[in-house]
Amino acid sequence: MRKHRSSLGTLLHHVHVSGPLSRAALAERMGVNRSTILALTAELVAAGLVTEEHPAGTTGAGRPSLVVRPSPDVFVLAFDVAVDHLTAARVGLGGAVLDRRSARRTRTGVDLDTVVRKLACLGRELLDAAPAGSICAGVGASYCGMIRPGDGMVRYGPEMGWVDQAFGAELAKTLDIGRPVAVGNEAHLGALAEFERGAGVGVPNLIYLHGDVGVGGGILVGGRLLGGDGGYGCEVGHMLVNPADGRPCLCGSRGCLEAETGEHALLAAAGRLHGQIGADAVRAVARDALAGDPAAAAAVAEIGDWLGIGVANLINLFNPGVVIFGGMLRDVYTAAAPHVAARIARHAMPVSRERTRLTVSALAADTTLLGAADLGFAALLNDPVQEFKAARTTP
Amino acid sequence: MRKHRSSLGTLLHHVHVSGPLSRAALAERMGVNRSTILALTAELVAAGLVTEEHPAGTTGAGRPSLVVRPSPDVFVLAFDVAVDHLTAARVGLGGAVLDRRSARRTRTGVDLDTVVRKLACLGRELLDAAPAGSICAGVGASYCGMIRPGDGMVRYGPEMGWVDQAFGAELAKTLDIGRPVAVGNEAHLGALAEFERGAGVGVPNLIYLHGDVGVGGGILVGGRLLGGDGGYGCEVGHMLVNPADGRPCLCGSRGCLEAETGEHALLAAAGRLHGQIGADAVRAVARDALAGDPAAAAAVAEIGDWLGIGVANLINLFNPGVVIFGGMLRDVYTAAAPHVAARIARHAMPVSRERTRLTVSALAADTTLLGAADLGFAALLNDPVQEFKAARTTP
Repeated sequence: MRKHRSSLGTLLHHVHVSGPLSRAALAERMGVNRSTILALTAELVAAGLVTEEHPAGTTGAGRPSLVVRPSPDVFVLAFDVAVDHLTAARVGLGGAVLDRRSARRTRTGVDLDTVVRKLACLGRELLDAAPAGSICAGVGASYCGMIRPGDGMVRYGPEMGWVDQAFGAELAKTLDIGRPVAVGNEAHLGALAEFERGAGVGVPNLIYLHGDVGVGGGILVGGRLLGGDGGYGCEVGHMLVNPADGRPCLCGSRGCLEAETGEHALLAAAGRLHGQIGADAVRAVARDALAGDPAAAAAVAEIGDWLGIGVANLINLFNPGVVIFGGMLRDVYTAAAPHVAARIARHAMPVSRERTRLTVSALAADTTLLGAADLGFAALLNDPVQEFKAARTTP
Repeated sequence: MRKHRSSLGTLLHHVHVSGPLSRAALAERMGVNRSTILALTAELVAAGLVTEEHPAGTTGAGRPSLVVRPSPDVFVLAFDVAVDHLTAARVGLGGAVLDRRSARRTRTGVDLDTVVRKLACLGRELLDAAPAGSICAGVGASYCGMIRPGDGMVRYGPEMGWVDQAFGAELAKTLDIGRPVAVGNEAHLGALAEFERGAGVGVPNLIYLHGDVGVGGGILVGGRLLGGDGGYGCEVGHMLVNPADGRPCLCGSRGCLEAETGEHALLAAAGRLHGQIGADAVRAVARDALAGDPAAAAAVAEIGDWLGIGVANLINLFNPGVVIFGGMLRDVYTAAAPHVAARIARHAMPVSRERTRLTVSALAADTTLLGAADLGFAALLNDPVQEFKAARTTP
């Protein structure tokens, strides 16, 4: 029974991540015969989770393998709580963002109630705009802080000044659609999203570094997220890299990786602290550096230097197959790559770095949002038929 | 078949790690009924791998559960190649060191042939001294450098100046007892040994730091050794902690954790570089610091400070249940604990460190040797009956 449930989930996971697949391709990927695929697909079709159709362009001649497609009527609500913005999206089975709403937010002093009410409002708008007959199969949220697994409690969210705030439970209550909200740290979810459908597909030892004003990390070891004892691993941003004269960090320490490579450090180094801030300002520094602006280039060199030290340390510790730069670090890395590479050459062991590839996020601005969506889909993919039956009967 | 083989291995693993266990205790630990234990034990008794006996102190009354004991006739050869010494031991099933031979060695410029010949010589002595009828079931070796999994190639052994030396293959050839030699990095094996029978039993997220002139690391994530892409993860010693004015490191960089906390740094800080070196010298500084010697205390404070920064970084990254200090770091940590704790309090996130315990190795000087022994036992524990049959028929 459990094995069958798991096979259904595996098949659905394949079409969720890869899009439409022929029965033959599914049989090959899952290592089962075509009659098994036929039976599993039939059950998922009956449940309303996938459809089957003849491949495009085929005529009646021969018997082409039917193509299994994720149902267009199944979606999750995905929320992304970043330092500068709140996003809510309807993401379909298959991973497409079907609809989205965003709101800017102020950086500090925002209380739980305000954030939760705003998110719930965006979520409601999306549900109201969803086509008749479509089904919300789950809810996932990405948050820029340390999250307790299981109940989505924000243990520590320095940018918002949150300590032990019951974010997941409160959002579920306020959203009030009869479904729990699964919450994860933004960089953790970003790592999983890049592993599933981004720049790290098939790379089980993967490091994802996410710039969102500060710097977060998601690290996969042997294909699994490094959780640690309580689920609080991967706090890359608070690795001390500059003990001698480090910049102050929001965490209370000085010289943390995020203090030396985050948005504030870059804008300060470029002499642009008094102008525009945020992702656009970071992008502008990176662009100007590449265009030859001396102050911007010096800032990128300085930040790239610290970033390279951090990445070299991670390479020594994790011997990763790939290091992926996402969020604001996508722009920073694009401009600072030579400085990062120089530090890695100097401080990472040759054996540790010999096969490590460095690249930028393939999912761009949607990495954490798609990670949140996958978290929302997790229960469905674990037990498709039962979960979907439950989703259909909630209001 | 495979499942049966694996149950035999699991049972043997239990008595190997925990010593004699009653059938009832085995049934409980393995979650199977007593008739299954009876059948498995009978097969292992017939193979000569365990014995069964009445528990001590029981009389004829009642039917006490028989006690299953590892056979005293089964052993492995374990080798430990550390910076200052070579050790070979006969380690019995059950984990007891039955016999050992050691040789000091010079630190630098020792070639592969010399080391291999010396080890093979020690190994031969042990085999010649083994009781008649006892069986060598495998060979494992611990090495102070980066090891390629699979063939025991030393990719990098800075203290000996080795690059890409076929250590495992050459030792097997020279030892010439018809068995391969499984090789692992000393700190990796130390971590596994402390997890199996030391200070980290039952703690799946474990960090072991090993001082052997330099500093090595073995990190368990979810109960498994962090290997990374090529098996070269856990290079804790080359984490850059002091980029401003770091001491030179053997790896060619400066300011690595091992350059700041290794034997040389401690003796230099204590003004004792021109006296005795090695583990005894490190122990003397630690002892003198605890006794109030100002120069020794200042040295321990300085080294403890850097060690604390390194451990804080590891706690942020791994959210471990325990951090274990072994080898020379056992003495260093014992003296430097307050300095380490102060740095952790300052640089590790409260949520990341809230449940992390710091302690010293429970296996003391034998941590890496027992890890090597376990590596030697691995094939036997994977497929006890077939492997032992093969071992019996080799010369």
